[in-house]
Amino acid sequence: MRILITGAAGMVGRKLVARLAKDGMLRGQKITALDLHDIVAPQAPAPAGVDVSIHTGDLSAPGAMAALVAPRPDVIFHLAGIVSGEAEANFDLGYRVNLDGTRALFDAVRLAAFAPRLVFTSSIAVFGAPFPDVIPDEFHPTPLTSYGTQKQMSEALLADYTRRGFFDGIGIRLPTICVRPGKPNKAASGFFSGIIREPLAGQEAILPVPRSVLHTHASPRSAVNFLIRAAEIDGDKVGPRRNLTMPGVAVTVGEQIEALERIAGADVARRIREQSDETIWAIVKGWPTRFEARRARELGFAAEKNFDEIILAHIEDELDGKIA
Amino acid sequence: MRILITGAAGMVGRKLVARLAKDGMLRGQKITALDLHDIVAPQAPAPAGVDVSIHTGDLSAPGAMAALVAPRPDVIFHLAGIVSGEAEANFDLGYRVNLDGTRALFDAVRLAAFAPRLVFTSSIAVFGAPFPDVIPDEFHPTPLTSYGTQKQMSEALLADYTRRGFFDGIGIRLPTICVRPGKPNKAASGFFSGIIREPLAGQEAILPVPRSVLHTHASPRSAVNFLIRAAEIDGDKVGPRRNLTMPGVAVTVGEQIEALERIAGADVARRIREQSDETIWAIVKGWPTRFEARRARELGFAAEKNFDEIILAHIEDELDGKIA
Repeated sequence: MRILITGAAGMVGRKLVARLAKDGMLRGQKITALDLHDIVAPQAPAPAGVDVSIHTGDLSAPGAMAALVAPRPDVIFHLAGIVSGEAEANFDLGYRVNLDGTRALFDAVRLAAFAPRLVFTSSIAVFGAPFPDVIPDEFHPTPLTSYGTQKQMSEALLADYTRRGFFDGIGIRLPTICVRPGKPNKAASGFFSGIIREPLAGQEAILPVPRSVLHTHASPRSAVNFLIRAAEIDGDKVGPRRNLTMPGVAVTVGEQIEALERIAGADVARRIREQSDETIWAIVKGWPTRFEARRARELGFAAEKNFDEIILAHIEDELDGKIA
Repeated sequence: MRILITGAAGMVGRKLVARLAKDGMLRGQKITALDLHDIVAPQAPAPAGVDVSIHTGDLSAPGAMAALVAPRPDVIFHLAGIVSGEAEANFDLGYRVNLDGTRALFDAVRLAAFAPRLVFTSSIAVFGAPFPDVIPDEFHPTPLTSYGTQKQMSEALLADYTRRGFFDGIGIRLPTICVRPGKPNKAASGFFSGIIREPLAGQEAILPVPRSVLHTHASPRSAVNFLIRAAEIDGDKVGPRRNLTMPGVAVTVGEQIEALERIAGADVARRIREQSDETIWAIVKGWPTRFEARRARELGFAAEKNFDEIILAHIEDELDGKIA
């Protein structure tokens, strides 16, 4: 079992690599080779008996993808991409990497004619307001960002290339990943993680929106579970609609804070300071709130059952079980 | 008012050119120049006072689109494309013309920075079975052909480029155009027109599917009306969801034949011979049946009210009012 991962140096990519190294198996077969690609060199694990190759470079550079798929991996995880804010700020870069890079990978696989399982991380950014209370699987994508547009276009390619038999693709639309480890960033969605991560680490966090804001989350651990499930699922059971909205935990910010208080106590929850930010609030208003994700659930994709589990996963995976 | 039309030599393109030449006006302004583009030279009308330029070539050829938009047309009608069957048979050609050609046009407009109204003909081929009884505007596109995929991807680009202000785009998803003038062709949908056109011309027509098949139609005259409406509509009223499913007449094949009999008599309707074709029937089963098209109707797009009107439009526009 040879596996190629693009975007292997990113947060989800690193966690996927660690999980594969730990499991040693995928689709019931022993993992013998891992090809890790990113724009900067991914950190390689050193599992016994696995041949790990590190690749760096621009996805959309001519010939880059043909070289990368030449060893004919059995499974490809395509995680690479420019993030939402950057794709909005830099029009050319976003389309070049997120659309042309994805198409270059898909075409390299098509031309090499070996039809692997290909798992692609899409995003709920393919959806744009206004929304019904619960967004069904049949709801149309009408993205309000270039990033969402690039993901939508890549999803369409993935479905058509799968229909034609060039590969066996599964696109998974990730909800907001929470609690993101690491330092605070400037993403408009950053506070969803910040209001949990910072207080648990003994620091103050800013809450820029009202507590009534409803949003859907899944942990980094669930994101990796989704990827593994997407690699292992029976493609015939998925049928021609290859892009699936992942399940998650839909909670208000107020409910996030109540869960934090239940788990870490009132003193920790008091480290959240409410300071409204009209700019962030305006962006967040356009985001989807709650998904049905019926097909994904029926196909065996599972997220946490409640936000307490999401916080406990963070404490276990990132804080060695300790709260500051 | 300068107007650019791609695909000007096609059936709808020719009718649009004739209509614009007759009206002499668009968006309340006098038409002074028409740029007509196609892979073969479009037939030019000779209206007084209009500067008509003929352009031929491949949409996706480097520099072709920049030259075409250099005169900064006020309105662009982008009708050009490889048809469904050909895009399915020739993978590279379909993506090159329908996706790369469209993107080349959009990017040429973006880089020239003059923000015209841009009308794009998409198709109900963006949808793929299974469907609800009536397909609402919010239903997700899941095309089952490469043609539908290319249209879906172009729609996504159009919405994003409009959101960014590169142009003011409107995508219109055309239903099946019926009655198509001209000779029978090998398209799986050909019989929908053939069972009306051939009997009215004194010839036999084959019906390859059951009379219970339900489908949505609009006349070539309505297709041109949609294009004009899309050119003239207030973009602010459309909002960010720029791709609209056009209205049409949803009828069964049996109802088509009853309408023919009402208008042309039982002897004409008897020229239809039922001869089932499992291959065509299998394709037609996957096609959408009935659309709500609520937004388009509210925005002033109007098709015929019933199939009788569609037949009468054909007799008037193509047969000089005469039935054989």
